[in-house]
Amino acid sequence: MTTTLSPTARTTIVRGKKRARDDRDELHQFLEEALIAHLGVDVGEHPLVLPVAFATDVTGPDDGGTLYIHGSVAARWLTSAHGRTVCVTVTEVDGLVAARSGFHHSMNYRSAVVIGEARVVTDPEERARALDLTVDHMIPGRSATLRASTRRELAATAVLAVPLREASMKVRAEGPVDDPADVDPAVWAGVIPIRRVAEEPRTSPDAAAAVPGDIRRRVQHLAR
Amino acid sequence: MTTTLSPTARTTIVRGKKRARDDRDELHQFLEEALIAHLGVDVGEHPLVLPVAFATDVTGPDDGGTLYIHGSVAARWLTSAHGRTVCVTVTEVDGLVAARSGFHHSMNYRSAVVIGEARVVTDPEERARALDLTVDHMIPGRSATLRASTRRELAATAVLAVPLREASMKVRAEGPVDDPADVDPAVWAGVIPIRRVAEEPRTSPDAAAAVPGDIRRRVQHLAR
Repeated sequence: MTTTLSPTARTTIVRGKKRARDDRDELHQFLEEALIAHLGVDVGEHPLVLPVAFATDVTGPDDGGTLYIHGSVAARWLTSAHGRTVCVTVTEVDGLVAARSGFHHSMNYRSAVVIGEARVVTDPEERARALDLTVDHMIPGRSATLRASTRRELAATAVLAVPLREASMKVRAEGPVDDPADVDPAVWAGVIPIRRVAEEPRTSPDAAAAVPGDIRRRVQHLAR
Repeated sequence: MTTTLSPTARTTIVRGKKRARDDRDELHQFLEEALIAHLGVDVGEHPLVLPVAFATDVTGPDDGGTLYIHGSVAARWLTSAHGRTVCVTVTEVDGLVAARSGFHHSMNYRSAVVIGEARVVTDPEERARALDLTVDHMIPGRSATLRASTRRELAATAVLAVPLREASMKVRAEGPVDDPADVDPAVWAGVIPIRRVAEEPRTSPDAAAAVPGDIRRRVQHLAR
């Protein structure tokens, strides 16, 4: 498996090179932490971009590991992607960067772009594993606490696999970069850090059990 | 101006209809609150999806109002979108929905999809206004506190306009929907609410001023 990113022209970062990361471990860690992806698929006259739940399997069957996206089999835009090149983009906003000019306002963020040929997963074992990974990506350890998926549920679920090989990652994590002529200590500049937090879990009206360990751990992890 | 959403087939929600919203005011409010968008552009063999800062002007020159995206003039994927149909998707995750089966795990979210013909803005007044709106979208009221953009800065900035007319919005904001056979009060199910918060602003080392009102208000707004 390759351990650096951007092996091809279409995922080589040409703009903002100093923010490009070439460490595959950093990509994997970011993809594990992020909650959703935006999947872009060509649907004829234009691209369609929709938010999707996802999971990654760095030991998956594809070159560089596999990114899995699941949806309903009735979602034709998703299943129509089979054999086509798609783009999966994952972004987390980390801060609002306020400079002394509008031009130098910016955001701190982490963003990964994966481009690859999508494959609708048909192997029953790989499908079941991808669904467990998607649940565990949302709440680590959760799939082991649940009953197995039924045949009917698996039949109603489409799983798309995208190779992780062609990927790039960009990170901006710094303060404003003002023009020297604009720097004036009397004018404020800086960063508003932004993060995602979890609140106390809300138990369903039809449940009387205590909040289980996997849910508690997920809340604590997101509250860090 | 139209006041309902989804006027065409390609933005009519066909899956998950009960989560579709058709209120244009709700779309505008959501687009005002969200921090970033994902812009999908066809770049030949595949779509490219990248995160972008954006702003909306509901009284903008396009049908239904205008969504503005700005970037560097050197970002060819952005300027190449002129005259082509693009997809702009904005998503905020509001919760992790833990059901009693993997199949019914889900997320709470708000998501807007705008499809339209992109236009590179050339009119100097519209360009300057779009840049101010983008800064104010990030930190309301901020552009009025800054010096005007220089001619050089404006020349280095590309602004893309997309009409807001063709848009759809979906919202999931509920607890898990379990199969009746799975419901057991002894098994926990519920939602982990997720939200974005701001931390204390970090002042740049080259600034000695107190944190100004616009920054304070932004932090308070995001802390709510």
